[in-house]
Amino acid sequence: MAEQVRAIRTRQAILSAAAKIFEEHGYQAATISQILGEAGVTKGALYFHFQSKEDLAQGVLAEQDQQLMVPDRASKVQEIVDVVMLHAHRLQTDPMVRAGVRLSMDQLAQGLDRSGPFLRWGEVGTTLLERAQAQGELLPHVVVPETADVIVGSFAGIQSMSQAICDYGDLVVRVSALMRHLLPSVVVPSVLASLDLAETRGATVYAEARKAADALELAPAG
Amino acid sequence: MAEQVRAIRTRQAILSAAAKIFEEHGYQAATISQILGEAGVTKGALYFHFQSKEDLAQGVLAEQDQQLMVPDRASKVQEIVDVVMLHAHRLQTDPMVRAGVRLSMDQLAQGLDRSGPFLRWGEVGTTLLERAQAQGELLPHVVVPETADVIVGSFAGIQSMSQAICDYGDLVVRVSALMRHLLPSVVVPSVLASLDLAETRGATVYAEARKAADALELAPAG
Repeated sequence: MAEQVRAIRTRQAILSAAAKIFEEHGYQAATISQILGEAGVTKGALYFHFQSKEDLAQGVLAEQDQQLMVPDRASKVQEIVDVVMLHAHRLQTDPMVRAGVRLSMDQLAQGLDRSGPFLRWGEVGTTLLERAQAQGELLPHVVVPETADVIVGSFAGIQSMSQAICDYGDLVVRVSALMRHLLPSVVVPSVLASLDLAETRGATVYAEARKAADALELAPAG
Repeated sequence: MAEQVRAIRTRQAILSAAAKIFEEHGYQAATISQILGEAGVTKGALYFHFQSKEDLAQGVLAEQDQQLMVPDRASKVQEIVDVVMLHAHRLQTDPMVRAGVRLSMDQLAQGLDRSGPFLRWGEVGTTLLERAQAQGELLPHVVVPETADVIVGSFAGIQSMSQAICDYGDLVVRVSALMRHLLPSVVVPSVLASLDLAETRGATVYAEARKAADALELAPAG
């Protein structure tokens, strides 16, 4: 058990080091020896967890998927909004999430398959939108996978714009504006009227999800 | 005159070389000597046109601004759609436009101010939306600079997603879907009903703009 905890910590230390080196040098220029130096682990330890530079990058990319769970909402559209707003909040505050998103937006990273996060976020969106559709929250013309992709793609650009202009200073404001622009074409008016799209929503959901996750960790393993 | 033509050609050759090197190595890792080698010009010629690596990158970034002019449209919203669709078409077909967009999305390019294209595209959008508003095409709640930024930011992400997933193979399909999702929150229904948002719109506008530009070049200087 102590062994396993140590392995998880080592893996995490390597991923943090990889995130830092990819951010500093770009995927293309980064080397495994730089990551080794930053992580302060042995070559053996690194290769036990990751086989290659691409493998390391995929590990960093996957970090953005490990989203804190948004609690179930009666409105599945609100749940989608909460997932989006929580992700925006974590981008502003969590270096690993930031590193994963930057890597997935690195259009210069040749030889690195960056489609994963787009496709996985697309699936998250599709699943939630299907549930929203099943309970009558969506307008009749909506084609679920198309709308999911529009939300994922446009979010990716809004975050990139916010980062380029003010290092994420206005991210939640921009994401809230994006939701206000997209959702009227997707959601029936009565649902629209009851949504919370406020800029503070991400921080609120984060506190809630954090609390739930901590309670889970404290609970004895079943 | 011949002197001037030569200078313009040299500048263009250097920019093409810089675009290629930035794409291959990323902004961070690219060096001026690599660009010199690729362009096949003297050091003196390069420094006559560009003072630094950042200066070269700014030159590449600016290439995406030199959009072919979209002809005046009675509907200013259609004109916005045409600018967006033309840009998508050029991204699919013009390596310099592609290089400029990639650089502006390179979140790992430290020390390079990438805000320029976002801000300049935001201004293009704001100008056109203000004219649309003045002639009654927009819904009353629209805040023009906010909507312009949502369009610019979300376009940036949609192109990035399309590049990551299929190297722009489905770009015009995705951009058309984005427009169908955003515009109903922005435009009055009667205008909405008359818009051409088809996937083929970019190619049509390109042919039209190209013809106008060629006619202008053939005309004697006034």
